[in-house]
Amino acid sequence: MTTDQSPSPALLPSGFVDRLPLDAQAEASGTETLLSVFASHGYERVAPPLLEFEDTLLGGAGAALADQAFRLMDPDTRRMMALRPDITPQIARIASTRLVGVQRPLRLSYAGQSVIVGNGSAGQNERQIGQAGIELIGPDSVEADAEVVAVAAEALACLGVTAVSFDLTMPPLAPSLIEQAGLPGAARTALMHALDRKDAAAIAQHGGAIANTLIGLLSAAGAADQALEALRTADLPAVTRLFSERLRASVEAIRTRLPDLQITVDPVEFRGWKYHTGVCVTAYALDSGEELGRGGRYLCNDNEPACGLTFRPDAVFRAAPRRTLPGRVYISSGTDPSVAKLLRTAGYVTVAGLDSHEQPEEEARRLSCSSVVQGDKLISLD
Amino acid sequence: MTTDQSPSPALLPSGFVDRLPLDAQAEASGTETLLSVFASHGYERVAPPLLEFEDTLLGGAGAALADQAFRLMDPDTRRMMALRPDITPQIARIASTRLVGVQRPLRLSYAGQSVIVGNGSAGQNERQIGQAGIELIGPDSVEADAEVVAVAAEALACLGVTAVSFDLTMPPLAPSLIEQAGLPGAARTALMHALDRKDAAAIAQHGGAIANTLIGLLSAAGAADQALEALRTADLPAVTRLFSERLRASVEAIRTRLPDLQITVDPVEFRGWKYHTGVCVTAYALDSGEELGRGGRYLCNDNEPACGLTFRPDAVFRAAPRRTLPGRVYISSGTDPSVAKLLRTAGYVTVAGLDSHEQPEEEARRLSCSSVVQGDKLISLD
Repeated sequence: MTTDQSPSPALLPSGFVDRLPLDAQAEASGTETLLSVFASHGYERVAPPLLEFEDTLLGGAGAALADQAFRLMDPDTRRMMALRPDITPQIARIASTRLVGVQRPLRLSYAGQSVIVGNGSAGQNERQIGQAGIELIGPDSVEADAEVVAVAAEALACLGVTAVSFDLTMPPLAPSLIEQAGLPGAARTALMHALDRKDAAAIAQHGGAIANTLIGLLSAAGAADQALEALRTADLPAVTRLFSERLRASVEAIRTRLPDLQITVDPVEFRGWKYHTGVCVTAYALDSGEELGRGGRYLCNDNEPACGLTFRPDAVFRAAPRRTLPGRVYISSGTDPSVAKLLRTAGYVTVAGLDSHEQPEEEARRLSCSSVVQGDKLISLD
Repeated sequence: MTTDQSPSPALLPSGFVDRLPLDAQAEASGTETLLSVFASHGYERVAPPLLEFEDTLLGGAGAALADQAFRLMDPDTRRMMALRPDITPQIARIASTRLVGVQRPLRLSYAGQSVIVGNGSAGQNERQIGQAGIELIGPDSVEADAEVVAVAAEALACLGVTAVSFDLTMPPLAPSLIEQAGLPGAARTALMHALDRKDAAAIAQHGGAIANTLIGLLSAAGAADQALEALRTADLPAVTRLFSERLRASVEAIRTRLPDLQITVDPVEFRGWKYHTGVCVTAYALDSGEELGRGGRYLCNDNEPACGLTFRPDAVFRAAPRRTLPGRVYISSGTDPSVAKLLRTAGYVTVAGLDSHEQPEEEARRLSCSSVVQGDKLISLD
């Protein structure tokens, strides 16, 4: 709408956006709804900073995103700092330092913004990423796995997002099966690559004795029952069987809590397996297929069992029904302030007239109000 | 509590902090309370990004903080970006670009984090700064000045912060008086410097014909009545009289709305006068003297009248009475989930027992719960 010849001041770097009124309000109030559900289950909020020293932020669990972090020099210490590409490793750091003396299970929640470098292409996906999540630190049990999924599902339901599917995986399972098969190194690499692409022909080519097992498990991905049954009857070495049994037990614990939750299982998916040590979960919106959040089991600070889940608030609010907006009432200049106060208490938004107008109804309509207070009367404009 | 010899992973760059449970929760819920009061008066939320191109972010109103902004290169365009040191200029940018077609008065609100470079000294003040504020864009009237102060005072009151003082200034007033006095350049500079230090002796030395007027106004700073009376009887040139009259009219408009609000006036304070074009306001906590927020009148995008106020949420919550925490109830493993749900609906925090315990009361106490559900009984531990 501007006619500047110079670069428009509205131009933002790709991947960064201005959220305008309806979106900004929906995302902020929705995030607080998520956090209030987390809090009601004892997840206490922490808020780490946007920047940390590079070696702290990008060590340990943070190393996975090290190449996605913007660096800055601290003029104070001349040490490099990084803008956080992910909040989760910061929560693990807090749990293992400032809160190391707090009793376990330790339940923490957080919400905030992260920034990633991105892939450098114009029109790329968002580079500023909202996150809102929970971490359950201490126990390594199926009950803990199930609690995280149940709290996440309840938080989504509280926002009206009920058409969801939770996709469960056990990232170390397939690598352990391949490890145990005693394949030569090159075949092992080719097999992992084939499995990553879900390429059955390549799995058959490189899989040797475990090719049929892998292909069977690959094709069993989907509804939890069929996938778990395929795992149950598969020929698995003992260590892989442990992972398979834990996955089955976690699914059962989730179902005990939420019998109606749609759960799918992908037995051989191993995304995140260098970081995750147990069950992982991704929540999807059934209508759009969009990912709403993800999480899983890992070792906090490399030694303490932990399990968490992070939502992408913007995706959650695209999936959520929009709430009814409160009515906007135009308050003519000179109206007794107690009238506007009463209306605000009743949930209305009051828009004060700063000047006198001959025709307050017109002014009210111009300011998108659906009613107007004039004298002691409330006049609807609909 | 760690015994590492290497730099502690808990060490953060100076000016950056981890907010732990009680503080993080108070700041987040308090910020949403501020924003909900803003929304009830028709201030619609916008959320600009953490980073923008340097020339957009630090041009115009943003230039004042240009030396406080961290810079980063956008790998996409190879242009420099900056981490925002202040949100207010971003709101002005949005108002004059994306929302230029929206009817005025335009009422916008925002909350978020900014980052400043700081002064490079160890132990310095915070470098990550929370902001929550409003902007009223379009009208240049005492009613608009008064609305901003009234909405800010109501938001503070909603958080229980009622022991506050609003300190009003008119930054262009003293410079206009000095400008009109026709002093030589060097004397003018010395006089501004003396006034900035509130050094009456130096004002007498450099002030020539206006020295007595300036000293009189300087000593009248304080309760609004005495300051406004000193301005009324002072010998002021016509252009300075316009500023003085506007200040008086704004104070009266605020008093009409909030007769009990403590208002002070500093007639010759000119902090911010290169940026602010009219009445400025700073809110202080009476108990601690801490600044809670500040704002004033300026030109949005150099051409549209605007008036706003930004709170520092951390300061506001230091001044606010702490809310009573909800009771924490330990839910013994195996309890009917509907019991915990009912308790959460009633406002309790439920902490699920993930294992069976012989003595759930002990486990409940260990996890800081004040009661425990066992079987169908709720047992208080106080």
